[in-house]
Amino acid sequence: MIKNLAALSNGTVTVSGWVDTVRDQKKVQFVVLRDESGAVQLVNPRTTDADGAVVADEPATTISALAQGSFITVTGELKHDERVKLGGIEIKLASLTVVTAAIPETPIAADSSLDKRLDWRFLDLRQPKQNLIFRIQTTFEHALRTYWIEHDFIELHTPKLMASASESRAELFEVDYFDTKAYLAQSPQFFKQMAQSAGFGKVFEVGPAFRADPSFTSRHATEFTSVDAEISWIDSHEDVMQLHEELLVAGFTAVKAKHGEEVLALFGVEVTVPTQPFPRIPLAEAKEIVKSRGYEVPRDDDDMDPEGERQIAAYVLETYGHEFVFLTDYAASIRPFYHMRPENDQTITNSYDLIFNGTEISTGAQREHRIDVLTAQAIEKGLDPEELGGYLDFFRYGVPAHGGFGMGLARVLMLMLHQASIREVTYLFRGPTRLEP
Amino acid sequence: MIKNLAALSNGTVTVSGWVDTVRDQKKVQFVVLRDESGAVQLVNPRTTDADGAVVADEPATTISALAQGSFITVTGELKHDERVKLGGIEIKLASLTVVTAAIPETPIAADSSLDKRLDWRFLDLRQPKQNLIFRIQTTFEHALRTYWIEHDFIELHTPKLMASASESRAELFEVDYFDTKAYLAQSPQFFKQMAQSAGFGKVFEVGPAFRADPSFTSRHATEFTSVDAEISWIDSHEDVMQLHEELLVAGFTAVKAKHGEEVLALFGVEVTVPTQPFPRIPLAEAKEIVKSRGYEVPRDDDDMDPEGERQIAAYVLETYGHEFVFLTDYAASIRPFYHMRPENDQTITNSYDLIFNGTEISTGAQREHRIDVLTAQAIEKGLDPEELGGYLDFFRYGVPAHGGFGMGLARVLMLMLHQASIREVTYLFRGPTRLEP
Repeated sequence: MIKNLAALSNGTVTVSGWVDTVRDQKKVQFVVLRDESGAVQLVNPRTTDADGAVVADEPATTISALAQGSFITVTGELKHDERVKLGGIEIKLASLTVVTAAIPETPIAADSSLDKRLDWRFLDLRQPKQNLIFRIQTTFEHALRTYWIEHDFIELHTPKLMASASESRAELFEVDYFDTKAYLAQSPQFFKQMAQSAGFGKVFEVGPAFRADPSFTSRHATEFTSVDAEISWIDSHEDVMQLHEELLVAGFTAVKAKHGEEVLALFGVEVTVPTQPFPRIPLAEAKEIVKSRGYEVPRDDDDMDPEGERQIAAYVLETYGHEFVFLTDYAASIRPFYHMRPENDQTITNSYDLIFNGTEISTGAQREHRIDVLTAQAIEKGLDPEELGGYLDFFRYGVPAHGGFGMGLARVLMLMLHQASIREVTYLFRGPTRLEP
Repeated sequence: MIKNLAALSNGTVTVSGWVDTVRDQKKVQFVVLRDESGAVQLVNPRTTDADGAVVADEPATTISALAQGSFITVTGELKHDERVKLGGIEIKLASLTVVTAAIPETPIAADSSLDKRLDWRFLDLRQPKQNLIFRIQTTFEHALRTYWIEHDFIELHTPKLMASASESRAELFEVDYFDTKAYLAQSPQFFKQMAQSAGFGKVFEVGPAFRADPSFTSRHATEFTSVDAEISWIDSHEDVMQLHEELLVAGFTAVKAKHGEEVLALFGVEVTVPTQPFPRIPLAEAKEIVKSRGYEVPRDDDDMDPEGERQIAAYVLETYGHEFVFLTDYAASIRPFYHMRPENDQTITNSYDLIFNGTEISTGAQREHRIDVLTAQAIEKGLDPEELGGYLDFFRYGVPAHGGFGMGLARVLMLMLHQASIREVTYLFRGPTRLEP
């Protein structure tokens, strides 16, 4: 790998990668070779004949014909030279083999539109910035998983094919399933709650979720990676928030340690490990704060809107110097039937949204585990308990108090790296009009 | 957690869990309390009045009414006593709170059929054996991921919604997708190959895959967790097999270290860490060996059948004392168009199946990365290159030599624990007639 070259002494090396750029000059040829770990300069002085004319020998002729993106393997003399801008090393070529020649016309350029870049995502992903995004995602996820493993969580793979809706019946994808219909899971909600009834205690899952959402915002996709956790024996949603904080601190700590410098160099962003505890503000209070800043949330219900989230995030950053804020105690009217309501106030729920740099990345809550209360809340929301049949069974044979959260992985990355859209940080984005590549 | 009690000194403790059994005797009541970490005996001597008659006081009355499965929180005096069979400790009850009472009639018993147990999977999963399966799965996966992370792999989340088939057009689930149709990914094959063209180098994914397979065997599901890896710059499928071996050794080593004793106690199975290298036998030779053992594979094509796999596995176990065997060099006629064929023999492929305890758990191969050869092989297989459009593009702009494998997670667990069906080791099995719970 190219990143390992700098540690080697001068001598013969063989490396492989793709052609980033070719400078085919009269007396010398330069090739920048790239792999997933970095880039290195290859140099090939041209041979001249007795009259000083350039000779068409190898590898010069092959280099002259090299299309950008071609994958090659080269052998040559590694030389450390401080004057070489690219890492202080270069390789003087002895031989070059073209593994696959790219066609010369590349369909996208640095200034292509996002949509055009997504059409050619595999070329777009060759950019060091794009590659870094997915190495960051890998590091972030592994830090979360390591936390979970160290704390005795069980990893779930819940089914994505369901007999009925897991959230609202709107935004549901229907699948032809032999002689019947199946639906794609909108979240692992029901099944991670089932794990509580099964006595699994603490569970997590990182997997796809599907929403037939026709919207085209920068924050929505029809398929996204959902980061989920659910734990038994909580006293309230406060326990869930504490878990959530610790996970994010673990994730950001790992990303900063492994990629902090690269993120600063390529994205101009300083990764900040959040301090604990994250600020917590009840939603009603947050709306008052936003109002006092001159913004009235234009909604008929009790919810926030995206501008309100940006405003409260700005307030929290100014007041507490924090990029995260838990908005708590959402109104029962705008939360699903399975959110628990505190004993002393049936109008609110033991729930929260987590806002990061002005955008919601997660919803968490204590779940209602008492079958009679749960059934009543379902009916109140206009649901038919018959249709929830299998789900309600989970609560009839004993279940501990429990709660958890679901978090959009791409949203975390988008906001961490100050990107404008989750499309930039999703390997292959899926939207209402995008199913390819 | 119950597993932590043994390390505590005698004194007051509070624990939570569900009721496993109640023995309501005349002079004393015993309750076995269970949580995800273990079980502990609770004891409550009955109070008697001056005449020696039992008094109906608390918590005695509550205990008499306790249904199995009810989740309770108890406080009492922990006492170490070697005579107590269950871990040498018991808790003398002071108080008991019922968190959720289970309904008294449990719909399944220890001898219920597998299908009935799956109907009530959340109760079935309360058994220590079932719980252990998913803790093993967690440990196994984390060991694989840790190997990948330490070796600079990038984790992918490839889309499960696709515009066309990723494998054969048979066994494809169709989804209503706004004004068009989408298909559920049968594997991440195309997208992990795309990562090679994108210069990601080494990638892995653990995620769902979908097959509209109407069969009811013990090895098939319509949705399963696929463990996938793909690496650049290989010389042949030998490099893929070496990666595959190292991953399995890492996984089995972790499982044996963390759960070996429990597996022996609950499943009667000794977890064996496989030695490297695993035996490798070309398929044609394997068929000769099987034949010499008196079994003729009853197939018209060049493939093995399940009995043939069991026979060759028995041979390998007898000959090499190994539970794994790579069957290599499968005929081109029975492999997908994207498997590479060696230069000197176009009738076979640079591919393998991995057999574990007599059953196939994985297919791996070097992929054909030369666009002209790849296109010719697709046409030879009766595919229309037009329909493969986006996939073939990945090879037109340069791509390194590469290969990888896909492995069924449930099959590994089934064979590791000597279970009869993947249904036992899948959190929620999905088959042609099973979409619930």
